[in-house]
Amino acid sequence: MIIESTDNKNYKYLKGFLNKKQRQKERIFLVEGIKVIEESLKETMPLYTVISTKIMENEDIKNIIEKLEEKNSKVLFISEKIFNSLSDTEHSQGIISYYRFLHSESINSLKSGRYLFLDDLKDPGNLGGIIRSAEAFNINGIILSKETVDIYNPKVIRSTMASIFRLPIYIISEKSEILQLKDKFKIISTSLEKSTSIFEYDFPESLVLTIGNEAHGVSEEVFSYSDDFIKIPMSSKINSLNANVAASICMYEMSKND
Amino acid sequence: MIIESTDNKNYKYLKGFLNKKQRQKERIFLVEGIKVIEESLKETMPLYTVISTKIMENEDIKNIIEKLEEKNSKVLFISEKIFNSLSDTEHSQGIISYYRFLHSESINSLKSGRYLFLDDLKDPGNLGGIIRSAEAFNINGIILSKETVDIYNPKVIRSTMASIFRLPIYIISEKSEILQLKDKFKIISTSLEKSTSIFEYDFPESLVLTIGNEAHGVSEEVFSYSDDFIKIPMSSKINSLNANVAASICMYEMSKND
Repeated sequence: MIIESTDNKNYKYLKGFLNKKQRQKERIFLVEGIKVIEESLKETMPLYTVISTKIMENEDIKNIIEKLEEKNSKVLFISEKIFNSLSDTEHSQGIISYYRFLHSESINSLKSGRYLFLDDLKDPGNLGGIIRSAEAFNINGIILSKETVDIYNPKVIRSTMASIFRLPIYIISEKSEILQLKDKFKIISTSLEKSTSIFEYDFPESLVLTIGNEAHGVSEEVFSYSDDFIKIPMSSKINSLNANVAASICMYEMSKND
Repeated sequence: MIIESTDNKNYKYLKGFLNKKQRQKERIFLVEGIKVIEESLKETMPLYTVISTKIMENEDIKNIIEKLEEKNSKVLFISEKIFNSLSDTEHSQGIISYYRFLHSESINSLKSGRYLFLDDLKDPGNLGGIIRSAEAFNINGIILSKETVDIYNPKVIRSTMASIFRLPIYIISEKSEILQLKDKFKIISTSLEKSTSIFEYDFPESLVLTIGNEAHGVSEEVFSYSDDFIKIPMSSKINSLNANVAASICMYEMSKND
């Protein structure tokens, strides 16, 4: 059966997930694109997948459908005409999968390892890029403040390049929850003052590195929780880097003394 | 005098610069925002500046106007109602300046130093971010292939955070022009195969580091010109980083053995 009408119940339900409120209510988000969905299937199964009739006969798509049906994951075919209204992209590849939220809301269980804390980051491209780099540099997980941009925003998901499925994500409702990690982790913030150059800094085995908001940097609250302060040495004409770049350089440097 | 009508000759002329063709024809581009324009005035003078009547009385704006008038740079006031149609941003601060193109089209004069070559980069945010990082890490200039995204795209300009005014930019019409640098510079490409880890690589004093296209990497042509191949060590689950992140990490690493 092919869905051809925008009155269709399934169509209406899935279209809702372009909206943040609906995603949060049902705790479901969407992912687009052949490669990313293929990657996701190694880690988890979507609840639903919609496929445009335009690409039903594509070989990669046939493979995906086979894997989904094997695990009883629901596949819906939708006419090309109305498919695009389910998509967040301008040039959709014709496939969208819908998954349960991936994050955890508690950091109680963290005992050791290297984590990032994102302190109210606002740019979707920065968040997605940081998740991608975090996997590349063997970070153990990412903790997000509640005010950080919605991790299930389709732009964030796209820029993670499937790392979102492999990297543990935590969203905490109060920044003070970070305090419970102080016993076992060093809390580190980037700062221009009173800080050690990352050329010199000896990154501990267990740490939480805070990345500040694009405009305001690390918040005073998290500053006050911090044990160590680090900076990336740079030209005196400039006093900041893009948040994704700064975070990635710190993670790269950490990855050296693994 | 305040421009109130979209029939005004100056208004029509300046509105044209939102369009790439018009920018290229007149070799003029636009920059928005109080801070960036303030920064630009330390390096160069705009040809024109338009200011929304909404912010005419703002103190920072008064300072900018004073500096512009001192140097006989033209200032136009435009009614709030029609100002927004000159802006590329959703929430304009109310000031736009128009400058002559900044780049050079010849790399003949380069004798030594560290340069990036951007091999058909397509994402405006990546290009802008790389320019910002390049200044932070004391790169001497950036060379762009002709097919790289338009450097005067307002999105690129915004993400450079005024570094565009301080960093020498070269746009070459043929990639083979890079060959003329081989005498004095090492040409370096990033590559997953046959490459040295940047942990180990000893960056020479004079080099051109090639950053590849987001989807296809470094082109075969530039590969064939390359003396050395380097890679950023990362998790085996991942084989690439965002182009801005990869470029920035290489520049950061280079800045260490300055």
